[in-house]
Amino acid sequence: MPAIKSIDWKKGRLIIIDQRQLPQRLKYLYLSDVKEVIRAIKRMSIRGAPALAGAAAFGLFLGIKDFPNNKNYSCFKKKLNYIAHLIGSARPTAVNLFWALERMLERAEENKEKPISQIKIFLLKEARQILEEDRLTCRKMAKFGCHLVKDKDRILTICNAGILATVDYGTALGVIYEAVKEGKEIKVFSLETRPLLQGARLTTWELKMNNIDVTLICDNMAAELMRRRMIDKIFVGADRIALNGDTANKIGTYNLAVLADFHKIPFYVVAPLSSFDPNIDDGSSIPIEERTPYEVTSLFFKRSIAPRGIKVLNPAFDVTPHNLITAFVTEKGIIKAPFKEKIKDLLFKR
Amino acid sequence: MPAIKSIDWKKGRLIIIDQRQLPQRLKYLYLSDVKEVIRAIKRMSIRGAPALAGAAAFGLFLGIKDFPNNKNYSCFKKKLNYIAHLIGSARPTAVNLFWALERMLERAEENKEKPISQIKIFLLKEARQILEEDRLTCRKMAKFGCHLVKDKDRILTICNAGILATVDYGTALGVIYEAVKEGKEIKVFSLETRPLLQGARLTTWELKMNNIDVTLICDNMAAELMRRRMIDKIFVGADRIALNGDTANKIGTYNLAVLADFHKIPFYVVAPLSSFDPNIDDGSSIPIEERTPYEVTSLFFKRSIAPRGIKVLNPAFDVTPHNLITAFVTEKGIIKAPFKEKIKDLLFKR
Repeated sequence: MPAIKSIDWKKGRLIIIDQRQLPQRLKYLYLSDVKEVIRAIKRMSIRGAPALAGAAAFGLFLGIKDFPNNKNYSCFKKKLNYIAHLIGSARPTAVNLFWALERMLERAEENKEKPISQIKIFLLKEARQILEEDRLTCRKMAKFGCHLVKDKDRILTICNAGILATVDYGTALGVIYEAVKEGKEIKVFSLETRPLLQGARLTTWELKMNNIDVTLICDNMAAELMRRRMIDKIFVGADRIALNGDTANKIGTYNLAVLADFHKIPFYVVAPLSSFDPNIDDGSSIPIEERTPYEVTSLFFKRSIAPRGIKVLNPAFDVTPHNLITAFVTEKGIIKAPFKEKIKDLLFKR
Repeated sequence: MPAIKSIDWKKGRLIIIDQRQLPQRLKYLYLSDVKEVIRAIKRMSIRGAPALAGAAAFGLFLGIKDFPNNKNYSCFKKKLNYIAHLIGSARPTAVNLFWALERMLERAEENKEKPISQIKIFLLKEARQILEEDRLTCRKMAKFGCHLVKDKDRILTICNAGILATVDYGTALGVIYEAVKEGKEIKVFSLETRPLLQGARLTTWELKMNNIDVTLICDNMAAELMRRRMIDKIFVGADRIALNGDTANKIGTYNLAVLADFHKIPFYVVAPLSSFDPNIDDGSSIPIEERTPYEVTSLFFKRSIAPRGIKVLNPAFDVTPHNLITAFVTEKGIIKAPFKEKIKDLLFKR
């Protein structure tokens, strides 16, 4: 596998792939300011729940690194909370972002007796740690997920849950990379994933780069492929999972889960424990980000595809109820229904 | 309603709206040659099953109008069959095209004793008749369909089954125009309908022009709207209906029917009897047109949205099994399940 990292930290700067430029250009952004990080998150130059955790952690560090070392912890904490709030407001649905911010704030709190200069060092270390853990977590999930994949499986996926959604391996696509490494022959079908086309632009790009057999289809073709018995399994990522297993993920995932149920195709969610929200009992409390209508009416198009001023709905995510999910793949193993107790065990016995 | 005709015949030329230019420009094409008609059908400057019937009929006339009047009928018939074959090959799924060609060939056959010049006049008359009948048929369907629509209904539709898919009124959208005329307050949700975006470009355009409340969504958002209970009914058109009720329509229709079934939302198909194929028992025999990958990877985009050379599937239609359809609305009335005998009665007792 080519050594590509979607997010990295070098010489005081956060380096990310500008995913808006793909598949045309592999261009990196060098961010040395929290405002730039927030802008990159909002514009989706970086996206994918686990990758957002890393961006949030380093964003927070960039936001406080120049805080005067001679001030007291209470002032420092105010600043930390303020920056964390700014970053958290950039994208509301993926919980990993909040999970990372929470971890950073806790690390500061644990060290509140230490000098500010020292706390900053701990925070940078924590952010690096989040990236490093993501790499390991993805590989663990991939190994567990492999048990669900057979030779010659034809796997359908939505959006991008790969290298570009994590540091360098992926959640749903990580399982596929691992299965191929084990010598299994896998065919992947990638839903283009309107409106921002992460499937068409990102998933096909990274799978092709890794020599994996991938075919692109429009979102509305999934049912037809299932009817033709061309799909054996579905693997998707997640942006936030409630305690009962209800799962928010890219818009269209719920659509896919209903189709999978109808066609009796297993539907797997691959996500690290950081995607589970311990504060939410079910999917009804997950905030769903509504994004600008222009993503639907004129994305990348030089010309608009809809009449001027037309009303648009553009929910960026949907919630798949737990009863449509066959199993979760986490870094601690595979969770099959009934989910609730098992998820609680994993989250609260960590 | 503004008097717009998507297809018309004037001064020896077939006049169609160039639907590839919408919603930016309302531009007409003037076709005086069968090759131009075939090109317009293939490129989808004109589309929609009932409109294709008209285009096919006039295309056939244009193809034989310069045939030497002094030759015998057997030569003329050969030419007719050849031109009909060319036109029929332009788009394989919509049966209305073949139905119109068949009608034209029958009319010629009935008059085979007459001079060629006379037969040509009959053929032109028949083509005009097909257009005129479409206008009446759409209005009859709309009246019947209205019984299925309540005040304040929120209706979801896919692709374009409106003015632009017929001569001037529509099938599924005709029902909506009629309901609004009757004073009902209707909200419409239009699926953008990838890859060619007939929903985003055409349906929103004509509904907006007619002051109908319309909201555009991406195809993969339908399930989420249904879950939020924002959709009361679904109305779609059809390209070919088998005797048992299995219905080929724009790709994504089957997807929608599965979602409707899951959410217990009525799913109605509005189509003239010319969309029913008396020669096909069930959907498995309906040919599904596969179109160029470029429609998926670079449509209208100045830049490609997928990596160069990526594999693509692009079925232009899918088949919705009859058991997912609540009722058909035809010009002879509403047909509820079980469909088979009722469809046969309507087709063979005409």
